[in-house]
Amino acid sequence: MKLTPEQRAEIDAARGQRFETRRITVPELEEILYEPLPVLDHGFVRVVDYMGDDGAIVQSARVSYGKGTRKTRDDAGLISYLMRHRHTTPFEMCEIKYHVKLPIFVARQWIRHRTANVNEYSARYSILDREYYMPAPDQLATQSRSNRQGRGAVLSGPEADWVLNTLREDAERCHAHYEEMLNESQDGETLDPDRRGLARELARMNLTLNTYTQWYWKIDLHNLLHFLSLRADPHAQYEIRAYADVMLETVRRWVPLTFEAFEKYRLKGASVSEGGIDVIRRLVAGENIRQEDSGLSKREWRELMGILDRTEENSP
Amino acid sequence: MKLTPEQRAEIDAARGQRFETRRITVPELEEILYEPLPVLDHGFVRVVDYMGDDGAIVQSARVSYGKGTRKTRDDAGLISYLMRHRHTTPFEMCEIKYHVKLPIFVARQWIRHRTANVNEYSARYSILDREYYMPAPDQLATQSRSNRQGRGAVLSGPEADWVLNTLREDAERCHAHYEEMLNESQDGETLDPDRRGLARELARMNLTLNTYTQWYWKIDLHNLLHFLSLRADPHAQYEIRAYADVMLETVRRWVPLTFEAFEKYRLKGASVSEGGIDVIRRLVAGENIRQEDSGLSKREWRELMGILDRTEENSP
Amino acid sequence: MKLTPEQRAEIDAARGQRFETRRITVPELEEILYEPLPVLDHGFVRVVDYMGDDGAIVQSARVSYGKGTRKTRDDAGLISYLMRHRHTTPFEMCEIKYHVKLPIFVARQWIRHRTANVNEYSARYSILDREYYMPAPDQLATQSRSNRQGRGAVLSGPEADWVLNTLREDAERCHAHYEEMLNESQDGETLDPDRRGLARELARMNLTLNTYTQWYWKIDLHNLLHFLSLRADPHAQYEIRAYADVMLETVRRWVPLTFEAFEKYRLKGASVSEGGIDVIRRLVAGENIRQEDSGLSKREWRELMGILDRTEENSP
Amino acid sequence: MKLTPEQRAEIDAARGQRFETRRITVPELEEILYEPLPVLDHGFVRVVDYMGDDGAIVQSARVSYGKGTRKTRDDAGLISYLMRHRHTTPFEMCEIKYHVKLPIFVARQWIRHRTANVNEYSARYSILDREYYMPAPDQLATQSRSNRQGRGAVLSGPEADWVLNTLREDAERCHAHYEEMLNESQDGETLDPDRRGLARELARMNLTLNTYTQWYWKIDLHNLLHFLSLRADPHAQYEIRAYADVMLETVRRWVPLTFEAFEKYRLKGASVSEGGIDVIRRLVAGENIRQEDSGLSKREWRELMGILDRTEENSP
Repeated sequence: MKLTPEQRAEIDAARGQRFETRRITVPELEEILYEPLPVLDHGFVRVVDYMGDDGAIVQSARVSYGKGTRKTRDDAGLISYLMRHRHTTPFEMCEIKYHVKLPIFVARQWIRHRTANVNEYSARYSILDREYYMPAPDQLATQSRSNRQGRGAVLSGPEADWVLNTLREDAERCHAHYEEMLNESQDGETLDPDRRGLARELARMNLTLNTYTQWYWKIDLHNLLHFLSLRADPHAQYEIRAYADVMLETVRRWVPLTFEAFEKYRLKGASVSEGGIDVIRRLVAGENIRQEDSGLSKREWRELMGILDRTEENSP
Repeated sequence: MKLTPEQRAEIDAARGQRFETRRITVPELEEILYEPLPVLDHGFVRVVDYMGDDGAIVQSARVSYGKGTRKTRDDAGLISYLMRHRHTTPFEMCEIKYHVKLPIFVARQWIRHRTANVNEYSARYSILDREYYMPAPDQLATQSRSNRQGRGAVLSGPEADWVLNTLREDAERCHAHYEEMLNESQDGETLDPDRRGLARELARMNLTLNTYTQWYWKIDLHNLLHFLSLRADPHAQYEIRAYADVMLETVRRWVPLTFEAFEKYRLKGASVSEGGIDVIRRLVAGENIRQEDSGLSKREWRELMGILDRTEENSP
Repeated sequence: MKLTPEQRAEIDAARGQRFETRRITVPELEEILYEPLPVLDHGFVRVVDYMGDDGAIVQSARVSYGKGTRKTRDDAGLISYLMRHRHTTPFEMCEIKYHVKLPIFVARQWIRHRTANVNEYSARYSILDREYYMPAPDQLATQSRSNRQGRGAVLSGPEADWVLNTLREDAERCHAHYEEMLNESQDGETLDPDRRGLARELARMNLTLNTYTQWYWKIDLHNLLHFLSLRADPHAQYEIRAYADVMLETVRRWVPLTFEAFEKYRLKGASVSEGGIDVIRRLVAGENIRQEDSGLSKREWRELMGILDRTEENSP
Repeated sequence: MKLTPEQRAEIDAARGQRFETRRITVPELEEILYEPLPVLDHGFVRVVDYMGDDGAIVQSARVSYGKGTRKTRDDAGLISYLMRHRHTTPFEMCEIKYHVKLPIFVARQWIRHRTANVNEYSARYSILDREYYMPAPDQLATQSRSNRQGRGAVLSGPEADWVLNTLREDAERCHAHYEEMLNESQDGETLDPDRRGLARELARMNLTLNTYTQWYWKIDLHNLLHFLSLRADPHAQYEIRAYADVMLETVRRWVPLTFEAFEKYRLKGASVSEGGIDVIRRLVAGENIRQEDSGLSKREWRELMGILDRTEENSP
């Protein structure tokens, strides 16, 4: 990730400011406020604003739980209870706003989550930078044979070189033609004063899907956790998971009690089906069961054994 | 509105705190932060948190508008443009959180707006206070004859007295029976140690719809303005309009440029139909038109003449 | 539940009609279309329209899964996979519309689910019927001592009689005064020609929370299942559970494959925390563990033992 | 738009089916059900399911308006009233489902509308067809000089040729490399048995933004009208407007009374600001006003004169 001197100066100015407020404030999160946290080769995540903390969740829950509970539960216990029993509305009372720079194909996955507010940099109005995502060599994976949505072994040697060169050349050529169609450079300079450029809203169609875009993205904590549980999951595509992992760290700084409960009950917990519960009961009772007798499909059996750690192949 | 000494002390403590933050801060709004603003006889609205200001709207819009516009528009102009052309997403980048005390029949109208986060005080867990809404004498209106949803002349004399007495007696009797069913007073004291009370989730059904409830309500600025445009409207029921009016003042403190544009283009603007535009064009051209020749229904004609201020009955 | 002859005739007319359509049609659901299914003493649920079936879910998923999967999975397998892995968007492709009659205090819980479309009968415009919910004697439960939101033993004898009589008298008196304030009977007859009635939007505040209201409620299948997983749960209040149970049967008729997967993976499945997984692993390995050594709180231990069926108290 | 024989056969099979239903049915819409309506060079819109009609809107509104109104308003009048006063919930009671084929850059604008259900064809699982959008020569517009988001004059001659050739060559080269990286043709044939292809989720990043994708898109009528009011607007980009125009025709078939009201009050109506109302009043009173004395900015003045048809430049 590279910032222009102007961008660095703007960020430093924002980080330098200090205001007095009566609002709930989280010093751990303020520490990294506005600072771009690098993701992939040119991307970043910046926390640019937030509202609430663990205490705000407890306070909101107590409107629903009322006087009687005030003394008997401490905050961590109540948050853990809310998480376990999926009482989600108190977590909606916290809000966070990010500025994110990300490749377009990642943005297309991300935007499927409809419960956030988004303002994206518009290529109808403005010119997109000549920046595109190139996978690191250890991420240049083949198609998985067993899993239609997964990755297999990593490519290497001349084949890897060819892929990387082709990705790079195609992205560069497409972007160069984009500027030529616009008759304008990134800095807004006209290239040929005797031509009128193609409309921006048209020229952008020549860009490749690894071109970087950016947006402001604002979401409440409940919906953020839902997004992260799907996108920090090993089944998620590596490129969006890289963003989710960085965002998880911002959540840990912001609402540490909620983060702990989220990790315990969601990220590291598991869902078990009716049939799975039956198998567990029989195993605990000492019975020796094979998949064939379990009532589970092979795939479900494999997933359950993964949870029970009874097989080499225990990754989800 | 009456606060217990404990409530007053809690509010004063919150108002007394001062934190340092790098976040955008709005001193005008901080001034009233946490303070209950009275509405109706026992209700209130309190701003308890907020995120963003007019500048945050501009900044978010400029992700979409990009470098080129940065110099040419000032903030007020851009906000006015966004409001006029219904570019709503930048207004979603600001968020506010209220604590509201309100009669249940008002809460039922309010909750129809689905784009907010809500935590309501739960009568399954806790006991509702013996507080219920009594209309002020000048609000004791008859049913309108012309408008099925409106109010007509104000009742007075023995008829008004009878209504007020009946509302009061029924609410009080129902609440007294509620406590007796619970076998518990508001303060959690058991009334008769030899009885077990009815479950709270059942006893509450004996309360009348003017009983006060309370909730935390959090919403983004775009959806708040939409709520206010419907609920601060003369067609809205007086009791919810009283809340909307107080909230409008909090918006004016929070985002003054947005408030000004909202007033100009929404609150005090008007929508005109295809047929209405035609009538206006003919009037401007000096033509003398009657409703019968206008192509408009009587009701639409009356509404249009109201906008043009050409009739006594020009209220919307 | 009692229908007027006019209502019965309207329903019969709707049920008597037959149209030809190219749309996907579900005969099992058509059988009960428009028919009121009784709930509680005066309530009902009617399916009044629907869109899609199990096949529509599969078809929508295959836009995402594409050609390659078409041959290898049958419909039931794919639906089961989607349910297990929480791929929720294909279930959003089915839609259902209900007409529901329900007590106001149930409506207030129900409306908390914001992802549906609602049109409620308005007491600003119209007069509410003199119908209110009275609990059946076996539902007249005391407050649970261990669970602030639960019910304990059932009341009986004179205490039960007093509660039922009081609920009835208060509801009846409040409704009678409501009509008197309106100066109008349910049938729209003016009671006293020399008086003008109080505005409907005001008079309604004198009604008790067990008064019945009604609405049209339209929702997609994914959000319906989420609603039902919360409201058909033993923790939900009995009165709303009664509605959820009847609606579950309509889902079984409509999308039987989805219903089966929902039952297996949601209704009868369980979520286990990180600590719970650890306990299960140790139990399966033959270790003898007590709560004290488990790392789980008493409450979590009890919940886990319930899932494993190792205790008398194994209800959730 | 070109269909494969298999696709044509599937569509004909769906169109050939006839079921009996008790549901509301709209013969005008059934006529075109499942049929692809061409848009742009390779795109289409197909209505694949629907729920409700004009009558369903009236019926839902009457739950809110109740008995009293039943006789006095006819359906067209009530729908017109609901549209004029922005009573939106009855329109949410109708639902429609489309299958759409569209270029990725159009899909990215479209998906900004968050109130729909979407299932997109996934390039993580499947291979995208070699189809990309090429603007028709009369759409090859230059960037507007006055409007940052608009189009100016149309390119022609060698410049137009160069743009079209470049768009085509870049899209073709990128797609050919995509297949080569995958080591797989569109039909799923392996190209070189000695190589393993790059993961699909990675290879797709080499495609250009004019590549076609497809999705199922389901939405209620209120939100559809909101989408159409923004996207059938002259300010919308031509390529998405082409879709909106075709969809408008499907709405006209489906709910003709609603369509008529929508056209009258939204598409061909206008919003006027407080200042604009003042100018109109003065004009109607015969006053001669210039922009300088109007209190309106130049831009607002121009927009108002456009509405009043008092200038050459009267397009919105």
